[in-house]
Amino acid sequence: MAITTPNWLEKRVDLSPDRTALVFKDQSWTFQEMFTLVQKTAGQMTDLVPGDCNRVAVLLNNRPESVWIIHAIQQLGLETVFLNCRLTANELLFQIKDSKPGLIIYDSPNAHTLVKLEPSLEPAVVSVKELVSRPIQKMPYKKEIHLDDVCSIMYTSGTTGNPKGVLQTYGNHWWSASGSILNIGLEKNDSWLCTVPIYHISGFSILMRSIIYGLPVILMEKFDERIVNQLLSSGQVTIMSAVSAMITRMLTAQGEQSYHPAFRCLLAGGGPVPKPLLKACKDQGIPVFQTYGMTETSSQIVTLSPEDSLTKLGSAGKPLFPSQLKVMADSDQEAKPMQEGEIFVKGPNVTPGYLNRDDANRISFKDGWFSTGDIGYKDEDGFVYILDRRSDLIISGGENIYPAELEGVLVSHPSVEEAGVTGIEDSKWGSVPYGFVVATEDVKEEELIEYCRQKLASYKVPKRILKVAELPRNGANKLMRRLLKDLL
Amino acid sequence: MAITTPNWLEKRVDLSPDRTALVFKDQSWTFQEMFTLVQKTAGQMTDLVPGDCNRVAVLLNNRPESVWIIHAIQQLGLETVFLNCRLTANELLFQIKDSKPGLIIYDSPNAHTLVKLEPSLEPAVVSVKELVSRPIQKMPYKKEIHLDDVCSIMYTSGTTGNPKGVLQTYGNHWWSASGSILNIGLEKNDSWLCTVPIYHISGFSILMRSIIYGLPVILMEKFDERIVNQLLSSGQVTIMSAVSAMITRMLTAQGEQSYHPAFRCLLAGGGPVPKPLLKACKDQGIPVFQTYGMTETSSQIVTLSPEDSLTKLGSAGKPLFPSQLKVMADSDQEAKPMQEGEIFVKGPNVTPGYLNRDDANRISFKDGWFSTGDIGYKDEDGFVYILDRRSDLIISGGENIYPAELEGVLVSHPSVEEAGVTGIEDSKWGSVPYGFVVATEDVKEEELIEYCRQKLASYKVPKRILKVAELPRNGANKLMRRLLKDLL
Repeated sequence: MAITTPNWLEKRVDLSPDRTALVFKDQSWTFQEMFTLVQKTAGQMTDLVPGDCNRVAVLLNNRPESVWIIHAIQQLGLETVFLNCRLTANELLFQIKDSKPGLIIYDSPNAHTLVKLEPSLEPAVVSVKELVSRPIQKMPYKKEIHLDDVCSIMYTSGTTGNPKGVLQTYGNHWWSASGSILNIGLEKNDSWLCTVPIYHISGFSILMRSIIYGLPVILMEKFDERIVNQLLSSGQVTIMSAVSAMITRMLTAQGEQSYHPAFRCLLAGGGPVPKPLLKACKDQGIPVFQTYGMTETSSQIVTLSPEDSLTKLGSAGKPLFPSQLKVMADSDQEAKPMQEGEIFVKGPNVTPGYLNRDDANRISFKDGWFSTGDIGYKDEDGFVYILDRRSDLIISGGENIYPAELEGVLVSHPSVEEAGVTGIEDSKWGSVPYGFVVATEDVKEEELIEYCRQKLASYKVPKRILKVAELPRNGANKLMRRLLKDLL
Repeated sequence: MAITTPNWLEKRVDLSPDRTALVFKDQSWTFQEMFTLVQKTAGQMTDLVPGDCNRVAVLLNNRPESVWIIHAIQQLGLETVFLNCRLTANELLFQIKDSKPGLIIYDSPNAHTLVKLEPSLEPAVVSVKELVSRPIQKMPYKKEIHLDDVCSIMYTSGTTGNPKGVLQTYGNHWWSASGSILNIGLEKNDSWLCTVPIYHISGFSILMRSIIYGLPVILMEKFDERIVNQLLSSGQVTIMSAVSAMITRMLTAQGEQSYHPAFRCLLAGGGPVPKPLLKACKDQGIPVFQTYGMTETSSQIVTLSPEDSLTKLGSAGKPLFPSQLKVMADSDQEAKPMQEGEIFVKGPNVTPGYLNRDDANRISFKDGWFSTGDIGYKDEDGFVYILDRRSDLIISGGENIYPAELEGVLVSHPSVEEAGVTGIEDSKWGSVPYGFVVATEDVKEEELIEYCRQKLASYKVPKRILKVAELPRNGANKLMRRLLKDLL
């Protein structure tokens, strides 16, 4: 039975109009104030979207206007395509052509990318500056939300090179929020610090939870450990989402001073938190909840409680209440405890599929289970351990980097015959990409790095590109990325 | 898209095996211990239920064994028919014949009713005492829960006389739990005191929430204000469900002593809490959340926060996050603020319909909205006020009494020609039923009361039955129950 709920934002305003919804620097807005701004924005946007299109793409940094715009798109009953602000113009072009939005909205920090792109774009493009000075049209009023409807689309890459648009329904976001609340609870004075990008599921999920839970989001344009430390020491923040690299920077800047006791939950994503960092957090009294999740699960699906973090070191924890996880030893058989295999997940927070990718959907879903491509195992107590992210995914400062994509760029260089990319541990970013190439001519490392810089978002550019005589391959001639490290 | 989740109890045990699940007198059980007992019970029950039947009826008081049995039925993938322990044998017989369970389980306090009933029963009957000494069979293992599946059936009456079986799906219970948590939050040390019957939705919903939230239920066989006061003063209880009559008794016994500050939520159902009682609660620092709900909404659907309880005196509050409520002025038009009309509700917590009652379902559901039959209005701020429960429902000490049912019994007496029943205010029970009859002979009040006692559960028996010359009727000759009071 398709499930229908009230319009979430309108409902939240009805229930708690005077609670704080958003804090940004020294400004704050109640849900009522936010709703007024969202409705205004929707009225300024409604006639820009062609009638036959139900999608708007956004290229927006973490700013209040971005929040109004994202909610305005939902109020209009349209789908939001979240474009990653760190991508190059060419990378964005693919996603825009694939998702075919009727309108693209960008803000001033992203103007330089859009300017490069605009001549080749079909959809209308509008800057936030232009948008907010437009006349306000009457807008269609959306009284209800159908949970099967698509709310957002975020791109993620895989082994096959081209990024895939992950469909996230309202139901996916609802169930993700439900799973999280049953895990960490909901207390009277809760507030969520968002220093992660709102164009990632880690950030966007905070905006959705704010509406569902009725709690304030403390939004930061960029992560800054000094400001974060001030906030965590003030008692203003009770929950924060972060990756290991951020936590390291926070602790280094904070020294021995402890945070305010109201700070009750640090959700840590993007791979296990290293043991020394965990210990340091414990000494500081910081409750770290390690998580495992992906765009396809609408944020975390597995979480490790602080009380288990040292006894189950390296584990991502257990699947949240509404979700399931199994490890398959092979295509027919579930793995025994301690036996590794591919990780499959299932639950109402899992995406219904990828946009325009019947082939990928056929491969990724089996009997209602989503194949993550990640490798791991469960221990005797059912705790999940992730050994390898899918397609040797590199997580660098919270951003996903896919070796296959970088290898594609490297071999497109005329001097490169073969290429392999892997992640190398890095104290600041957790991991950084390294390239290994078999090159036909005497091409220099700097030239290859510069070539990558033109083609790839800066965080994806390999830190080093090393020439080798041959790449490690298995019997089937498949590149063994895990063995690349040994060539160092 | 049909939603599938893990088996809730198994999942809860996986996530928090060592948390307390149930407290009864001086005993307590963790979720792991409870699961072991539930599995054992399921194994003792599985071969008693005929293969072609998916329903088990229970006639059970608030006891630990009842909790194991209710969960065991769910583990076996069967539906539970909750029989009200206060009904007479004849009243039960109707519900059993209507729901056709494959098995009836009763406990010793209810043996006297079952003994009267057994000769006329088709399904197998087993006492808890017999059940727990049976051999343990291998039972089918239910790994997942489909939210559209029926979990429970509870009977409720209406204008037409015969009780109707309300179908409650797992999804109904889930969404009811979600709506409640978003309203009152979920804190680390939460526990829920259950002194209301588990065969009512008010009690059963606590058992379901315990599994979903992972919190202990403090179960009492019967409401006893002295024990309740001890518990609320000890800090062991943070949430309690009650009706006004209970609160009055609690406060009277408690005197001026305040409860433990950990006691953070008193959910009050069964009609608005009278102003003096609200004030007394406020003086005692008791946070009263007034609610409006029914079997068909799987417990409360509208709640008034303590901060609004005095400014919005008499209001039931606002619909919970996942739910909607509208007041219809007539069949086509929504009422304006302050204008009264029939109350309609909608949401994933609302029943999909009544068992075996296509006619009632057709009447009760319009475009996805459920017609409650209750009369009320919304004020300018959207707060809901209930004026009249459906079919002049009488709520007496938390039990629903339907005048039509009592009138049917009264007119079945050879001396009674016409009958009308209404609720009269009562300081102890909130309201009690009074009968008004046009009688052909010189029959005595005591005789009629005794007649009712044979046919009706004791709480339904009219406190007084008064003879009158004629009943108040409108132009269409419809009984005007609201005017019966004036005959006193």
